[in-house]
Amino acid sequence: MSLLTIGTVAFDSIETPLGKADMVIGGAATYISLAASYFTDNINLVSVIGDDFPQEELDYLSSRGVNLEGLQRKEGEKSFFWAGRYHDNMNARDTLDTQLNVLADFNPTLPAAYKDAQFVMLGNLTPAVQQQVINQLNGRPKLIVMDTMNFWMDTAMDSLLEVIKQIDVLVINDEEARQLSGEYSLVKAAEKIIEMGPKYLVIKKGEHGALLFHEGRIFFAPALPLAEVYDPTGAGDTFAGGFIGYLSETGDLSFENMKRAVIYGSAMASFCVEKFAIERLKGLSRADIINRVERFVQLVNFDANL
Amino acid sequence: MSLLTIGTVAFDSIETPLGKADMVIGGAATYISLAASYFTDNINLVSVIGDDFPQEELDYLSSRGVNLEGLQRKEGEKSFFWAGRYHDNMNARDTLDTQLNVLADFNPTLPAAYKDAQFVMLGNLTPAVQQQVINQLNGRPKLIVMDTMNFWMDTAMDSLLEVIKQIDVLVINDEEARQLSGEYSLVKAAEKIIEMGPKYLVIKKGEHGALLFHEGRIFFAPALPLAEVYDPTGAGDTFAGGFIGYLSETGDLSFENMKRAVIYGSAMASFCVEKFAIERLKGLSRADIINRVERFVQLVNFDANL
Repeated sequence: MSLLTIGTVAFDSIETPLGKADMVIGGAATYISLAASYFTDNINLVSVIGDDFPQEELDYLSSRGVNLEGLQRKEGEKSFFWAGRYHDNMNARDTLDTQLNVLADFNPTLPAAYKDAQFVMLGNLTPAVQQQVINQLNGRPKLIVMDTMNFWMDTAMDSLLEVIKQIDVLVINDEEARQLSGEYSLVKAAEKIIEMGPKYLVIKKGEHGALLFHEGRIFFAPALPLAEVYDPTGAGDTFAGGFIGYLSETGDLSFENMKRAVIYGSAMASFCVEKFAIERLKGLSRADIINRVERFVQLVNFDANL
Repeated sequence: MSLLTIGTVAFDSIETPLGKADMVIGGAATYISLAASYFTDNINLVSVIGDDFPQEELDYLSSRGVNLEGLQRKEGEKSFFWAGRYHDNMNARDTLDTQLNVLADFNPTLPAAYKDAQFVMLGNLTPAVQQQVINQLNGRPKLIVMDTMNFWMDTAMDSLLEVIKQIDVLVINDEEARQLSGEYSLVKAAEKIIEMGPKYLVIKKGEHGALLFHEGRIFFAPALPLAEVYDPTGAGDTFAGGFIGYLSETGDLSFENMKRAVIYGSAMASFCVEKFAIERLKGLSRADIINRVERFVQLVNFDANL
């Protein structure tokens, strides 16, 4: 089924303990679309870039089934740019530079063909922009998934809460869940956040896995233990893309299938961190993904003999 | 099968964000024995206390099937004492006071009836004392499990490595695994540590679960997400006690059963943190434990539909 995603399409400069990558392709919508493209070829992207963005990278997205009709290109302007440096443990990072550029006055406009989207992924952006996307849809999609970050909790809490009311699944990390709820315990945080509107909550814990909460039930998906993590950039967006991609492929919103979607999202994220930027997300095969999911099964599978 | 454990039997003073407990019963061997007592009534404890230790607490251990013949009581001396304060996130703590007292010149002596132990749990103590226990055994036990801590890596690395060579399972936390191996990645750390001697390695990650490594295989057990953690003191020892207790009850050292033992250890640890000190480990029923294990099954269970 058709998948609409909004988010940044951008340049990143990344430093990790294992290397550096300057002015590489990044952005939430890039990672989301690439990850989802392994599950559906009906992806409608909404974003904005400057005239500095390489055509071959856009061609690559198109070749993966990503429709770029909703991607605005602003002549004489520059694409969004982020630079960051990861700490030795890869779990923390410092932002070295952020240049909003084209994002400063971004007003998303949905092409007519996008407006009947059944699956909508609101990548991390100003809540007001996420709201603009919802407002342009023809009717209620089957599923709206949303990502956000601490910055919007600090600067735009009211409009953030208004968007959260209208979605089905909120996907955030543990620190964001704690800030949003004011609760340290993730179990208590989840209770409060689900009262804000979403039926499902996914809390990502990076190398410690992810939790799915729904109607008092909890599912835990581990992260795959890896010998080397080269670059965590985009892992959260890749998770979200794999998650909603799997759901849009299967069209099944049962809790059992949501659990599988969390595992597929985790599997896609485990690829993402194995190379810099989007490199590892290029050229995967269906067999690669199935083998990776099988490793998750092996990792947690046990017979309790009860 | 008979289970021998060595470790401290001690007093703790504990402060957590949710409360305080002064001069309560603690110590690694106390937690290990109590947790293991739900799986076997053939537990031989080796430790040392002063004349300040309450007889009713010893009677309680005896009532749980813990043999105290190997517990030395030193007249005119005081029991080991530890005081600590947990940070808001409960994952970090500061030691406020440590009084070795009777532990300063502890020479463990195994009663004759202990020397044929088939399952041996070396709780965290000076490696030299752990070695003394191994030296007094009649022949090789079926399984030796060992805990240790950073302090011995800083102060007694040579004798620590010598003990590690002789054991089957090392149970340590993530920071200890990193320090022991010099590797940040737990996958790489595990490879190096298994080369040091143990066939199995368990890396505990507190609220983030535990990893079991063996011959290139990895099993991950989550920690149970809890609404409140009252006191993490003894959770690691309780894990170890549940782990070796389950193994000594079943006598099965296959990888499949080791996985179950990790789950049972995690289940016992999840009880431990629900109240202060050893309170929650008193008066559990077999049904309580089975229900808790069932929650672990539900937490990670999914059908990959592959």
